[in-house]
Amino acid sequence: MTRIVIIGGVAGGASAAARARRMDEHAEIIMLERGEFVSFANCGLPYHIGGEIESRNALLLQTPDSFKQRFNVDVRVFSEVVAIDRFDKTVTVKPMNGESYTLTYDKLLLSPGAAPVKPPISGIDNPHVFTLRNIADMDAILAVMATQKPRHATVVGGGFIGLEMAEALKHRGLNVALVELSAQVMAPVDPEMANMLHQKLVSHGIELHLNTGLEAVTPIEQHAVEAEAMDQYDVAEPAQHALKLTLSRGQLQTDVVILAIGVRPETLLVSAAGIALGERGGIKVNSSMQTSDPDIYAVGDAVETADFVTGDAALVPLAGPANRQGRIAADNMLGGDKHYQGTQGTAICKLFDMAIASTGHNEKSLKRLGINYEKVYVHAASHASYYPGAHPVTLKLLFAPVSGKILGAQAAGIDGIDKRIDVLAVAQRAGLSVRELQDLELTYAPPFGSARDVINQAGMVATNVLDGVDPVCQVEDVLAMTDEQLLLDVRNPPELTKIGAFPNAINIPLDQLRQRLDELPKDKEILVTCMVGLRGHVASRMLQQHGFTVKNLTGGYKTYQMSTAQY
Amino acid sequence: MTRIVIIGGVAGGASAAARARRMDEHAEIIMLERGEFVSFANCGLPYHIGGEIESRNALLLQTPDSFKQRFNVDVRVFSEVVAIDRFDKTVTVKPMNGESYTLTYDKLLLSPGAAPVKPPISGIDNPHVFTLRNIADMDAILAVMATQKPRHATVVGGGFIGLEMAEALKHRGLNVALVELSAQVMAPVDPEMANMLHQKLVSHGIELHLNTGLEAVTPIEQHAVEAEAMDQYDVAEPAQHALKLTLSRGQLQTDVVILAIGVRPETLLVSAAGIALGERGGIKVNSSMQTSDPDIYAVGDAVETADFVTGDAALVPLAGPANRQGRIAADNMLGGDKHYQGTQGTAICKLFDMAIASTGHNEKSLKRLGINYEKVYVHAASHASYYPGAHPVTLKLLFAPVSGKILGAQAAGIDGIDKRIDVLAVAQRAGLSVRELQDLELTYAPPFGSARDVINQAGMVATNVLDGVDPVCQVEDVLAMTDEQLLLDVRNPPELTKIGAFPNAINIPLDQLRQRLDELPKDKEILVTCMVGLRGHVASRMLQQHGFTVKNLTGGYKTYQMSTAQY
Repeated sequence: MTRIVIIGGVAGGASAAARARRMDEHAEIIMLERGEFVSFANCGLPYHIGGEIESRNALLLQTPDSFKQRFNVDVRVFSEVVAIDRFDKTVTVKPMNGESYTLTYDKLLLSPGAAPVKPPISGIDNPHVFTLRNIADMDAILAVMATQKPRHATVVGGGFIGLEMAEALKHRGLNVALVELSAQVMAPVDPEMANMLHQKLVSHGIELHLNTGLEAVTPIEQHAVEAEAMDQYDVAEPAQHALKLTLSRGQLQTDVVILAIGVRPETLLVSAAGIALGERGGIKVNSSMQTSDPDIYAVGDAVETADFVTGDAALVPLAGPANRQGRIAADNMLGGDKHYQGTQGTAICKLFDMAIASTGHNEKSLKRLGINYEKVYVHAASHASYYPGAHPVTLKLLFAPVSGKILGAQAAGIDGIDKRIDVLAVAQRAGLSVRELQDLELTYAPPFGSARDVINQAGMVATNVLDGVDPVCQVEDVLAMTDEQLLLDVRNPPELTKIGAFPNAINIPLDQLRQRLDELPKDKEILVTCMVGLRGHVASRMLQQHGFTVKNLTGGYKTYQMSTAQY
Repeated sequence: MTRIVIIGGVAGGASAAARARRMDEHAEIIMLERGEFVSFANCGLPYHIGGEIESRNALLLQTPDSFKQRFNVDVRVFSEVVAIDRFDKTVTVKPMNGESYTLTYDKLLLSPGAAPVKPPISGIDNPHVFTLRNIADMDAILAVMATQKPRHATVVGGGFIGLEMAEALKHRGLNVALVELSAQVMAPVDPEMANMLHQKLVSHGIELHLNTGLEAVTPIEQHAVEAEAMDQYDVAEPAQHALKLTLSRGQLQTDVVILAIGVRPETLLVSAAGIALGERGGIKVNSSMQTSDPDIYAVGDAVETADFVTGDAALVPLAGPANRQGRIAADNMLGGDKHYQGTQGTAICKLFDMAIASTGHNEKSLKRLGINYEKVYVHAASHASYYPGAHPVTLKLLFAPVSGKILGAQAAGIDGIDKRIDVLAVAQRAGLSVRELQDLELTYAPPFGSARDVINQAGMVATNVLDGVDPVCQVEDVLAMTDEQLLLDVRNPPELTKIGAFPNAINIPLDQLRQRLDELPKDKEILVTCMVGLRGHVASRMLQQHGFTVKNLTGGYKTYQMSTAQY
């Protein structure tokens, strides 16, 4: 009888345990979890803090008992594995309130996850500084909110958890500051897309500190408010916060700090056992999810997987991949031959009423890797604009210059964002070119889409670029214009006054352009623009065929606005 | 200078005109439209009648003037083409209030559309019987509603327009009957999926008459109500409807009839000109959208295109394909070499708060064509079930038995239906197998999806079928059980009493099954079932490995309910 030992009882570990049982009714399966809970909904933690998920129990998907009853898995919580002996094939388990013991294994699965990064900043161990990884962390944050009624919270880090926590704390009525070391939140997307999040944060009253590092946390001594001594009963009680935060730029007073600056694979145990780590610091596995020791598999946030586009090792701490890896590892531990197909890093984040999502590579990483790319922007309605409830979808599509291979995509907006990135994630995984996006047959009725969906439009725009039918330029080009170039805005004058104008453009509305061609020079390159790029395309085609040298600003003024906004 | 003449100024024709101008600034483009409007939003008509789209103007996307100004297209409305002379390359145009004239063409594009079918039923020409194809039809329906205040409407035909009109009229406060000749509404999906629509219609108080034909329309003579003579002031005024409908089963009194029993390609003009029609009665075109006359192209509802799965000729009157075809035809008329890639028939329909969508083939058509298939059902939450607002997605997936090639998919529910069918439409078009659906990396955060999305789950279930890991049975098998078979329901007893039970199942809850194996016979085939098929899968795997012969009812009791419900 095979004995499978699993270290870690959340996402990847729990998926593997259930799948292993289904595949082998007779295997002995032991799942060891350091914490109190297995298979809890860690992605739901911020939403329970924010109050959107009312019941804490809703987050507890399985219990040790339910796992035992249904899957005949021996689940041991409060059981930390402190050593792995690969030569004897044993692990040493330290129960929280008990004696250590060893367990033999035939196959061992590592699903230790990743821990929040806690940098060595002065005062970081203050009890008002929290991280959020598990139920206990969530409970601690809820407890401080219930007992101490903090009025101001500071979230450090603008990734998924940072953004979700900023929103959650705002929902709870706190004043919230968000401190982010880099120039943008949400690293998976590019800065101009992140600017939509910056705008949303600011519009909800969140103090946004970009390009700002946390340097020290200092407790503020609490004095009872001596209103009488002040003799000013009608003056509002002065803010008395618990902490002073020293920032790289300025300082903040706050009551609680949520540290959400990223996670790091939990590999101490693993590397101590002589199991190979990869170049990114995660556990190295092959596509079978097998580590350098053939009897030991690893899955989830702690492992490095192959990037779908480049094949390079990547750390992608996401729930979907963890679940799929767990399933694959279970099959393979039982003699199967399943392979993990690489990670695109498809992800989405809700922020108040909007969503932002991405798949594949962003422009920053393509530049860093030296991969050639083209990019186009489309701003189109989430469904037929004449049907109520349509909102703009802002889509950025990155693709290879000749083949048109999809390299990555990002989308943001209020409606239909998940759908568009899902479609592009499938298209990328299936190896479709942007040309084929034109022909995708997507569901259309006015409440759901458009006869020519955002995705089709993006395919058309990209194909026009590939075919040389509509050469495009970018905001970068507009910002670096030379005397040999001219910026032509073909919007109608009221749009310029109401929405905003380029500082250096001449304006000829599209519907007058054919009659006013003689106002344009043939010895300059004309950069054409409109609101979103559609009228610019029509103008660009017209001008090209009248002998002008033209490029169309992809995404138009809207992309210019996104790209140049300052927060 | 090339002269392009376009017959028909909606969807396909208008798309072609705009694209042709962008591709060739110097071509002469003349667009002839029989009606008053070009490029109107015909998919929006029912929603304006229902009041969801408030402004009639919102449906008028372009005017002849706007087309002229922007695209330099000579748009002539109220201009019917009454003859095509292919040898002289001319068309004869009959303006509504003017003299006929001829126009020469270099390339001719036919985009005549399809007309509502109006069968030769006695009384069908009654002025209270309407069809809905264009703005004029919509205006006529709105006029009768405004002036005659009908209280009861009968919609004949349960396709897209029939369903949308039933809902629209209900929104307007009318009592509504829906009469459908076949056993189900919404022909693109299979009967058990359509049953979800039947339930929705009935729950909204719409009288549903399935398997019922309209045989005659008879006006009812209107009498003034003589309340005095009746001497019964306290009795409600008796219903006095305008029409009596004789049905194949029974009769109905109603005030207005909306005929929505389908459309037929408008081909009289085309066939009179000697242009070839196809086997389905539409205009025959090659993948370049070229008719049997190389200078004449055709697009939209009037043409036959290749079915994506079988390559057979199909009539698919949908807006998306029409738009894409228009674009392709425009390129090709100007010397391009673009090819239409076949039609999956991806479609969606909103009905009150739910949506139903499909792509590819349904089970009915696979049977008719003699194509072997497997089918699985998944009922899973539209997003993480612990996050508010999750609703079940009911998904039916049809695939080839060995290759796992996707043949078709259908989905219904309140949330996330468009997204799931979009993903499957892309997967099918890209040639993915159901195995690959397991690995799709879709956007996941609790408000948007699940770490293991409905689509991933469907891929896992289908792969388990392909791999023989979880042989499934269908509702048909449960309904035709023999003495050599046994139905085992592994739900918990409260589910049986609250939700419903199979008449012939034995019940052992899953969590007790491992201890009660001796209650089951080894000499019978055990059909296992639960609520949606997930616990059935766990039970099936367990039983198989204990030496039982097992099949899991795919989709469980929920699919059984859908399949056996009577309306």
